Amino acid sequence: MHMECRNKNLLGMGVDVLYHIGLASDSHDLKKMFGDVKFVLMGGSPKRMKKIAERLLEEFKIELPCGTGLSNIANATDRYELYKVGPILSVSVSILFLLYHGMGIPSISILLHEMAKLMWHAGCKDVAFIRLGTCGGVGLEPGSVVVTTDCVDCGFENFLQLKILGKTVQRPAKLDTQLVQELIETSKSVAHDYTVISGRTMCANDFYEEQGRLDGAICEYSEAEKLEFLKKAHDLGVRNIEMESLGFAAFCHHLGIRAAVLCVTLVDRLKSDQINAPHSVIHGWQERPLEILIAYMKKHLSM
Amino acid sequence: MHMECRNKNLLGMGVDVLYHIGLASDSHDLKKMFGDVKFVLMGGSPKRMKKIAERLLEEFKIELPCGTGLSNIANATDRYELYKVGPILSVSVSILFLLYHGMGIPSISILLHEMAKLMWHAGCKDVAFIRLGTCGGVGLEPGSVVVTTDCVDCGFENFLQLKILGKTVQRPAKLDTQLVQELIETSKSVAHDYTVISGRTMCANDFYEEQGRLDGAICEYSEAEKLEFLKKAHDLGVRNIEMESLGFAAFCHHLGIRAAVLCVTLVDRLKSDQINAPHSVIHGWQERPLEILIAYMKKHLSM
Repeated sequence: MHMECRNKNLLGMGVDVLYHIGLASDSHDLKKMFGDVKFVLMGGSPKRMKKIAERLLEEFKIELPCGTGLSNIANATDRYELYKVGPILSVSVSILFLLYHGMGIPSISILLHEMAKLMWHAGCKDVAFIRLGTCGGVGLEPGSVVVTTDCVDCGFENFLQLKILGKTVQRPAKLDTQLVQELIETSKSVAHDYTVISGRTMCANDFYEEQGRLDGAICEYSEAEKLEFLKKAHDLGVRNIEMESLGFAAFCHHLGIRAAVLCVTLVDRLKSDQINAPHSVIHGWQERPLEILIAYMKKHLSM
Repeated sequence: MHMECRNKNLLGMGVDVLYHIGLASDSHDLKKMFGDVKFVLMGGSPKRMKKIAERLLEEFKIELPCGTGLSNIANATDRYELYKVGPILSVSVSILFLLYHGMGIPSISILLHEMAKLMWHAGCKDVAFIRLGTCGGVGLEPGSVVVTTDCVDCGFENFLQLKILGKTVQRPAKLDTQLVQELIETSKSVAHDYTVISGRTMCANDFYEEQGRLDGAICEYSEAEKLEFLKKAHDLGVRNIEMESLGFAAFCHHLGIRAAVLCVTLVDRLKSDQINAPHSVIHGWQERPLEILIAYMKKHLSM
């Protein structure tokens, strides 16, 4: 299915400047550059996205011309980073596209709008948006991977709330059930020494107070109240907490984009607030969502 | 006045890991590194923060030892960037500290918590937090500078709303009246060819829909409705729109930190949505909030 244009104003616009990713519909041949994109991968760490891009080159046996290397496509701006990997020769139509989305719903929301417009300008078909991230777990061994089924905010509401032209608008934050199942199924062949589960994700607008941490600059509740909150979340099916999924899910669901969120837990919030695992261990854990996704993409692309 | 500790849990903690800025209370001598900080400057563009740091070295005649250059202090992480400028020898106690805060309230909120904790660990006194940014103007010539008096969200509410342990909490988003007046007064000596005004700032959680833009991937209102919204905002005193001030103001006000927001407008939203000014022009405009702040700091530090 072709990427749909859901804003008729765009049809009449002479030039569309994708300001935050440093591209425009007149200065770049977006169809040629991006027309074969099938997977848009997003994550919250810029260095990490470049490393993922390099690993994908290897996994999909993509050889860059001698003397070239991966280069940030969004180099006209310094807020987001974009890497393109492909084409994968054996399937020729598919390209992977990687982006750093910053932290929090507002930051990823800018990127989602501009990426959806880019995919539409480029005439892409059957694109899936995937967020790979890190998170706090709720009742899970650190290093576990959660594939998100649906999202709630920190008041347990299962929708994104926007104030559009001063009026409150609510959008359901659902993800693609089939994609969740396929990812869980695929994980069985690669996740031999860690847990992978599907579950509800709680999405916070802040790292400290909304997530019930005791170690922020402000904390006006007790440890007992914190634990009561986290246990309630667990009872309601919440298995992890991060800061982008609600906006990501609501946006993709509203536009009918197939989407998934895979996050590795860095801490069990029922036991601790601070992330104390050594960097080397965390780096190993961060590979896990990617391993599952690579296995899924290989299957999907019949490699 | 010493930076206060408003979370008693921190007093009993063995180690405080400032995870997102890559510092910790055991591995770094925070008092020695940061005890003399007086101004914490924050902005939304990493390249820009480094350039500002370099300009401040010149303005305050700070000579780095031969063979050294400014280096990102937060290099253990790749999400934020921190530069320290100083000490300024003539006043010896003052140091400027610059940070990239990402985009949106959640992103700046993480940094605010960790910076407030850092200032407390370091035993800093009389610190001011200043946000230098870019924004959309409402009824102003692009290139004008707005010094924020107070903030509203996109539903015209003048407080930050958080969901803490599942319950809604509201915090007033006020800034320091005296600091606003001093900055406006100072601007008269430097702003010869552009407008500087104080005014209310509207803070959005999204660049497109909440700001009433017609050019997002989703737009479910007409141009007439958009203009009605922006004119209502103007009637209520809103002079600019950005994405961090509400969280910044509410946090600093809650902790009693002296704070100010200075933003340059890149577009007049009553006339356009897209930012079409050439990069070179925008770069020139971006110097304006900094020029005003430098003049203020020089006066304040009696240089």
